[in-house]
Amino acid sequence: MPKGQPTTIPDDGLTTRQRRNRPLIIVHTGPGKGKSTAAFGLALRSWNSGFDIGVFQFVKSAKWRIGEQTVLERLGQLHEETGEGGAVTWHKMGSGWSWSRKDGTEDDHAAAAAEGWEEIKRRLAAEQHDLYVLDEFTYPMKWGWVDVDDVVETLQSRPGRQHVIITGRDADPRLMDAADLVTEMTKIKHPMDAGQKGQRGIEW
Amino acid sequence: MPKGQPTTIPDDGLTTRQRRNRPLIIVHTGPGKGKSTAAFGLALRSWNSGFDIGVFQFVKSAKWRIGEQTVLERLGQLHEETGEGGAVTWHKMGSGWSWSRKDGTEDDHAAAAAEGWEEIKRRLAAEQHDLYVLDEFTYPMKWGWVDVDDVVETLQSRPGRQHVIITGRDADPRLMDAADLVTEMTKIKHPMDAGQKGQRGIEW
Repeated sequence: MPKGQPTTIPDDGLTTRQRRNRPLIIVHTGPGKGKSTAAFGLALRSWNSGFDIGVFQFVKSAKWRIGEQTVLERLGQLHEETGEGGAVTWHKMGSGWSWSRKDGTEDDHAAAAAEGWEEIKRRLAAEQHDLYVLDEFTYPMKWGWVDVDDVVETLQSRPGRQHVIITGRDADPRLMDAADLVTEMTKIKHPMDAGQKGQRGIEW
Repeated sequence: MPKGQPTTIPDDGLTTRQRRNRPLIIVHTGPGKGKSTAAFGLALRSWNSGFDIGVFQFVKSAKWRIGEQTVLERLGQLHEETGEGGAVTWHKMGSGWSWSRKDGTEDDHAAAAAEGWEEIKRRLAAEQHDLYVLDEFTYPMKWGWVDVDDVVETLQSRPGRQHVIITGRDADPRLMDAADLVTEMTKIKHPMDAGQKGQRGIEW
């Protein structure tokens, strides 16, 4: 909660304001809970600042729908109706990317993931969103479906003022090097260890 | 994202359903980002499930208002207007607890924190909320303003089906023992280290 002060002032020729407003690459990784949840919590905050939010979920299943999707889409609708907050668009690999003709029932997840990344590249080039949530995007990188160097290079050279959050376990060291903010979520204790399954309202 | 399966089935005499629906004590601790953000992300999810949400922020300043408050209160208003989601009430120590006659300008933060905890105890006894977000509540415990044993005993004996999330650094070991889910957020890298201050839409 404390706002804090930078511990060093870099010699980068930028004013404090310019430096403050640099867009961020944020990574939430580690084996613990809260990586995606914190990303969507951040999206909530960004919505309130009027950011245009694009969510890209690299999940295999179309069935998996989390409460955050319903609420953030509802907030996007509120934006359209009343002008409050920002726009929200939500894309999910498992149900077929919304801009794609493919229906998501195919088993070629590698191709679907690559297709998702290509669209994100186009949008970054066009400065389409203010905040990109690339949920579970570390996995296609880990599995070689998306080239890590291409991701790092694309993110580092992205134009304008676009923030990008990437979530998932086992983030590649090159991605973490390129990121401005990396948080690792570590599991200390989980109800699953005591035989308790996930429940509505808490887990999804 | 994977739903996962429990690794052990405890011999506790409960059915899977009963066990699944046990209310949780959740702790987000550690020096990294995302403790509160993930808690509010979880609140978003809970709102979508129709949970009645009570947020209690143990912050000293009245000025500090985060985007999540605006959005969650807006969602609470939406609930009142349309019946969507759940109710949301937000209480902040620094601006004077809303149920209290004191105005929050006093400097006695210890008394204010104790007063906040007493109200939470009353609400837990009355089963007033489905989800309690006790934001930054580890600090009054750490500073001795609120008794840790009292918190643990109250949480462990709370009636009904009330979930409680507590955030903040340096969670007491007794609290972590009592919790069902503990996640530690660790800072790997932070823009402040590169001299960059927080910015609207991202940090608040």
